[in-house]
Amino acid sequence: MLMQRLVSKIQKTNAPIVVGLDPMMKFIPEHITQKAFAEYGETLEGAGEAIWQYNKGIIDAVYDLIPAVKPQIAMYEQFGVEGLKAYKKTLDYCKEKDLVIIGDIKRGDIGSTSAAYAVGHLGKVQVGSKTYAPFDEDFATVNPYLGTDGVKPFVDVCKEEDKGIIVLVKTSNPSSGEFQDRLMDGKPLYEWVGEKINEWGADTIDESGYSAVGAVVGATYPEVGKIMRKVMPKSYILVPGYGAQGGKGADLLHFFNEDGLGAIVNSSRGIIAAYQSPAYEKFGAQGYADASRQAVIDMREDIANALASR
Amino acid sequence: MLMQRLVSKIQKTNAPIVVGLDPMMKFIPEHITQKAFAEYGETLEGAGEAIWQYNKGIIDAVYDLIPAVKPQIAMYEQFGVEGLKAYKKTLDYCKEKDLVIIGDIKRGDIGSTSAAYAVGHLGKVQVGSKTYAPFDEDFATVNPYLGTDGVKPFVDVCKEEDKGIIVLVKTSNPSSGEFQDRLMDGKPLYEWVGEKINEWGADTIDESGYSAVGAVVGATYPEVGKIMRKVMPKSYILVPGYGAQGGKGADLLHFFNEDGLGAIVNSSRGIIAAYQSPAYEKFGAQGYADASRQAVIDMREDIANALASR
Repeated sequence: MLMQRLVSKIQKTNAPIVVGLDPMMKFIPEHITQKAFAEYGETLEGAGEAIWQYNKGIIDAVYDLIPAVKPQIAMYEQFGVEGLKAYKKTLDYCKEKDLVIIGDIKRGDIGSTSAAYAVGHLGKVQVGSKTYAPFDEDFATVNPYLGTDGVKPFVDVCKEEDKGIIVLVKTSNPSSGEFQDRLMDGKPLYEWVGEKINEWGADTIDESGYSAVGAVVGATYPEVGKIMRKVMPKSYILVPGYGAQGGKGADLLHFFNEDGLGAIVNSSRGIIAAYQSPAYEKFGAQGYADASRQAVIDMREDIANALASR
Repeated sequence: MLMQRLVSKIQKTNAPIVVGLDPMMKFIPEHITQKAFAEYGETLEGAGEAIWQYNKGIIDAVYDLIPAVKPQIAMYEQFGVEGLKAYKKTLDYCKEKDLVIIGDIKRGDIGSTSAAYAVGHLGKVQVGSKTYAPFDEDFATVNPYLGTDGVKPFVDVCKEEDKGIIVLVKTSNPSSGEFQDRLMDGKPLYEWVGEKINEWGADTIDESGYSAVGAVVGATYPEVGKIMRKVMPKSYILVPGYGAQGGKGADLLHFFNEDGLGAIVNSSRGIIAAYQSPAYEKFGAQGYADASRQAVIDMREDIANALASR
């Protein structure tokens, strides 16, 4: 089952790490964009090709070190259909490398519409007498603003297809508290969402002991992590905001259970654009993928040290 | 400017109506799917072709009656890249017909990610020395859960490009109240969001008197419409939930200002699948587009009667 597969991969790699495949043009080394533009021109197709080649280099360099990747679909969707082709190619390649794929799509709508997102991203869509799995991620991130009937269609598909969702609880951005922290009957909104996550995931718990309905809680809010770890004992917590957004290894402790499980930490630009930061600039643009590999190794050590220190 | 353009079109058509282009396979007449499958097989490409031909028929039949359309991207995205090609074709065709396009994408993320969605859907993306407008909707719907820094990048692009956003406030689905209705310091979440909408849109008000930051409030909650009409006097309210979801003309009164402006009502399956309902079945599957036209005319009358009755 999916959660057991994720847990096994985390244990095997000793790396509760997700690499965020969030390509921005400014991250992509010139030798890659030049080659793509030479072939396709400075077009959306050229941008898609550059993104894909860039991703492929990173995936080849890090796939044996990590359990999972999290492509942020917005970074592809901004290039339209051509960008989404690169998204799909990236998903397919990650699947070939046996990585767990978290589609960071943050979708969520009324029931019938969420059902369409769910079949498109996690399930199968019917076309006449045939079925297809158009994107086929393992997990999708989901926005809870619309409440249970906007989330349930995703959960239904998860049960049918052995897939998972990760629901936004407390996001890593500076103004996340504007609505998420507001008290409702003495409890912040994020805690109400967390309690619903327990309900939504209740009958999706597999042999790992974790449910297929996880939660996003930002590394930038460790105190919230501490609370939410207790509120949602059966949910894996996806922790964005490590690295570039300011979260540090020591901040992550509260997100994990005693056994070192229960959380998986995302880093995007800290890994995929490592070569642009002072710590890894010695790799140079040509060595961007090696820089990413070293950044994963260092992140793994940072988290392991933090977990060992408690 | 955009809001003036929308208001003028509403006044000219006397129809504060948006047609929701939310194609589901079960809505598409057999003669269209058969033709598409004959050409492309029962494939994702075939589904995309069927959707596009179905949409084209409806657009041709109703474009002179209405100011705006609202394609729901999920209904295309569920067919993967091929579905999104049909989405793009639909947008381009609606633009040719001079319709205002509301991309119902309900995106929203941390700042840098919302910026990517904003350029992809409303603005222009840079590729080397060139720029492209990949989707180029006029409006996009936005989910506010992440707070100001998740919404601001959309507003920035709106200002640059004369585009608009419509933020989820109180959605039309049955469980929307789960989080949206909860009281925070005595006010429901949707009202807090509404007040933020005033801030976000404050310097986007054009000669129409309306701001480029609108709000979604479901027809299924007329009492909320009454309150929110006062809370956000400068925002257009997009009202989903009319027709198939249960909202009626009389329920809509509260969403409009005294002058009959300030709201635009969406109907999706009630129009695009009209031929499948008892009231319009006489048109038959071959006449599905004519049925849609008649349904628009009837909806226009229903709303006009309701507005005249007050």
